[in-house]
Amino acid sequence: MADYHEMWKDLGMDVETHDQLCEVLPQAFGDVYLSQENRPEGMDYFNFVVAEIHGVRPAELIEHQKKGGKVFGTFCVYVPDEIVFAADAIATGLCGGSQFWVPGGEKVLPTNTCPLIKASVGARLDRTCPFFRIADMYVGETTCDGKKKAWEILSEDVPVHVMNLPQMKRAKDVKAWAEEIREFKDKVEEFTGNKVTADKLAASIRLINGKRKALQRLYDLRKNEKLPVSGCDALLISQIAFYDDPTRFAEMTNKLCDELDKRVEDGVSVVADGTKRIMLTGTPLAIPNWKLHNIVETSGGAVVCEEMCTGTRYFEHLVDESQTTVEGQIQALAERYMNINCACFTPNEGRIEDILRLAKEYNVDGVIDVNLKFCNLYDTEGYFVERAMKEAGIPVLGIETDYTDSDAQQLRTRVSAFIEMLNNA
Amino acid sequence: MADYHEMWKDLGMDVETHDQLCEVLPQAFGDVYLSQENRPEGMDYFNFVVAEIHGVRPAELIEHQKKGGKVFGTFCVYVPDEIVFAADAIATGLCGGSQFWVPGGEKVLPTNTCPLIKASVGARLDRTCPFFRIADMYVGETTCDGKKKAWEILSEDVPVHVMNLPQMKRAKDVKAWAEEIREFKDKVEEFTGNKVTADKLAASIRLINGKRKALQRLYDLRKNEKLPVSGCDALLISQIAFYDDPTRFAEMTNKLCDELDKRVEDGVSVVADGTKRIMLTGTPLAIPNWKLHNIVETSGGAVVCEEMCTGTRYFEHLVDESQTTVEGQIQALAERYMNINCACFTPNEGRIEDILRLAKEYNVDGVIDVNLKFCNLYDTEGYFVERAMKEAGIPVLGIETDYTDSDAQQLRTRVSAFIEMLNNA
Repeated sequence: MADYHEMWKDLGMDVETHDQLCEVLPQAFGDVYLSQENRPEGMDYFNFVVAEIHGVRPAELIEHQKKGGKVFGTFCVYVPDEIVFAADAIATGLCGGSQFWVPGGEKVLPTNTCPLIKASVGARLDRTCPFFRIADMYVGETTCDGKKKAWEILSEDVPVHVMNLPQMKRAKDVKAWAEEIREFKDKVEEFTGNKVTADKLAASIRLINGKRKALQRLYDLRKNEKLPVSGCDALLISQIAFYDDPTRFAEMTNKLCDELDKRVEDGVSVVADGTKRIMLTGTPLAIPNWKLHNIVETSGGAVVCEEMCTGTRYFEHLVDESQTTVEGQIQALAERYMNINCACFTPNEGRIEDILRLAKEYNVDGVIDVNLKFCNLYDTEGYFVERAMKEAGIPVLGIETDYTDSDAQQLRTRVSAFIEMLNNA
Repeated sequence: MADYHEMWKDLGMDVETHDQLCEVLPQAFGDVYLSQENRPEGMDYFNFVVAEIHGVRPAELIEHQKKGGKVFGTFCVYVPDEIVFAADAIATGLCGGSQFWVPGGEKVLPTNTCPLIKASVGARLDRTCPFFRIADMYVGETTCDGKKKAWEILSEDVPVHVMNLPQMKRAKDVKAWAEEIREFKDKVEEFTGNKVTADKLAASIRLINGKRKALQRLYDLRKNEKLPVSGCDALLISQIAFYDDPTRFAEMTNKLCDELDKRVEDGVSVVADGTKRIMLTGTPLAIPNWKLHNIVETSGGAVVCEEMCTGTRYFEHLVDESQTTVEGQIQALAERYMNINCACFTPNEGRIEDILRLAKEYNVDGVIDVNLKFCNLYDTEGYFVERAMKEAGIPVLGIETDYTDSDAQQLRTRVSAFIEMLNNA
């Protein structure tokens, strides 16, 4: 790995503390990823991205800024990256997925806040992540209590624009979301000094759709009985999608998919015949949170789908590319994004339908409903999810966890028992 | 107390379990209230209301229903009672304030949910509160994650109408809230079969304003150096305001205020000169949650103001009575209600301004920032509240508690130390 210490110093990072993270990440990655057998060669690119995660991409973003470009940091799959790219700016995900950042968040947030929010706030305030330093403006949303209030704290340290996501999905709510997107466009134009024209927005809609199509292709390949790629690897790709250059990401993912196509043709699988196919549903798994996938896949199961923000919620549904006016494009964006079914909506029956549909499409043997501790939304909705699974005759296991390793052994016991039960069914 | 067992049975209540609550409530009330010295005679009415809380008022509501009237149950100070009363229906508060109902809620909700929500859901599903049985329709709102999702569970058992409260306070949000009130009006009209006319709405606006004015008068009296009424008593009145007949409530509160006026004239105080004046700020204290007031007032302090839903947020700001069209009245309602500063909004600087203003108006010596466990909104906002107090030189104590008594001793120690510190300052 190249030495990025100068760059990190220039970013005003706490380099000494950050070094502690740099020391443990390769080990963690190696344990989960490099120990896997029969990995596709196309994963080399994604391995490289992780190995240089706080180096290569940050350097690109800084390069972009040196040319006068802006970088927007986002935390949610409802925020339309298309607007950002249409203004010659770059959007990058900022969700913290490591326990490393949690204590920093707990200095200002209640302990009873989900680890994703605590880690995100900690990464900023402790100055221990280059992405959080680089982003010129953060884009927040009103998806949950914890995030909604965290923006207030973050906005004392960095410019934050908050989008008011409606809490329901009536016709007027889609209209209200279009209005929020319009205001976001105005804000982005003002902040970048660049105009979002219909041509530029059309191009960025195609750009982000291209990323979605690549992910759809990858996920479609996971529907095969002969599984050409592990759940761990697919998750890693989903996580990297939030950070990477969208053109290169789509290109590299498609390249991997070419290889996976060949595997399917040849009947190559990363798991033994009969390995139980698990779908995870629930709260997002931000990088480097690979805990549950690792447990499932070292306990005799295979993760074949994630009904999560780091999963199907990120790429299902394309934005209509046929609109030729900014107004029409904004409407198309609003409609596409309001199709995502997050537990922050009430009611959110669409998500139950999604899970049932995905369980069929991916030929799933069992569902694990995973909740990040203190996410009240997904935790409460789990009541409906688990009931619907039981009604549909799909075995389901409810799990609550955080970013620490303290429950790993207990989770392993429960997951193993679940898979054992599936094997004996 | 009269015997209401037949009525409770007719309501489909679990009378046996409910009897356990009936057994403990008088003792709890006696301990906190009847042990107070020098109480105003006007409190007799409110003592009576509590003594018969599951009898007299429920019987009135049932009488109203027998005449074809409807009853709406509400959970939030943003829901405009005016609309309900204008349709010849009755609105009644439904927030659960006792640990008694919490385990029932925990059967379906995450343990990490605030006790108020758990108690409210438990009171309904366990059939242990007449108000929860009587209400023909519940009115929910999207104020917090926990409530938003709890409506989904409750709506399987009772009709629920959910109002989408905006999460910000821009001009368009006030407009959106007016639109929600309009839809609520349509819903209430449809459900009751009664038309909400401008005349009827004008009358109900005056009715609810009358209740607010009575509470304002009561709270104004608490601003006197010679404190004519205890915090415990004032809290009880605030709590009863959510349930009682608004006309009678205003009448009885005004009658009490006449007596308190006399006390002020005569220099009568319920506490010794120099008793430290405490303001509570934070999450609501639903009946029969008197824990913190009792602790403060038996530890040498006096509660002189509650910046809470059960407090100033409920009655500050009147609805403009000069509007003569339903459209104008709805706009006036939207503006009045959007003036309330709840932590569910982002940002919510108005609340800090309220607290600083109230601290002056009530000549407060110290502020206790009290949070119901797992209320992420007020807990996070506490960061700003407590900082603002320190900056203003107002001593502040942050407390997190729930409905159990397990922390009472610890709270007493902390509150005593706080008051001791104020005494020595």
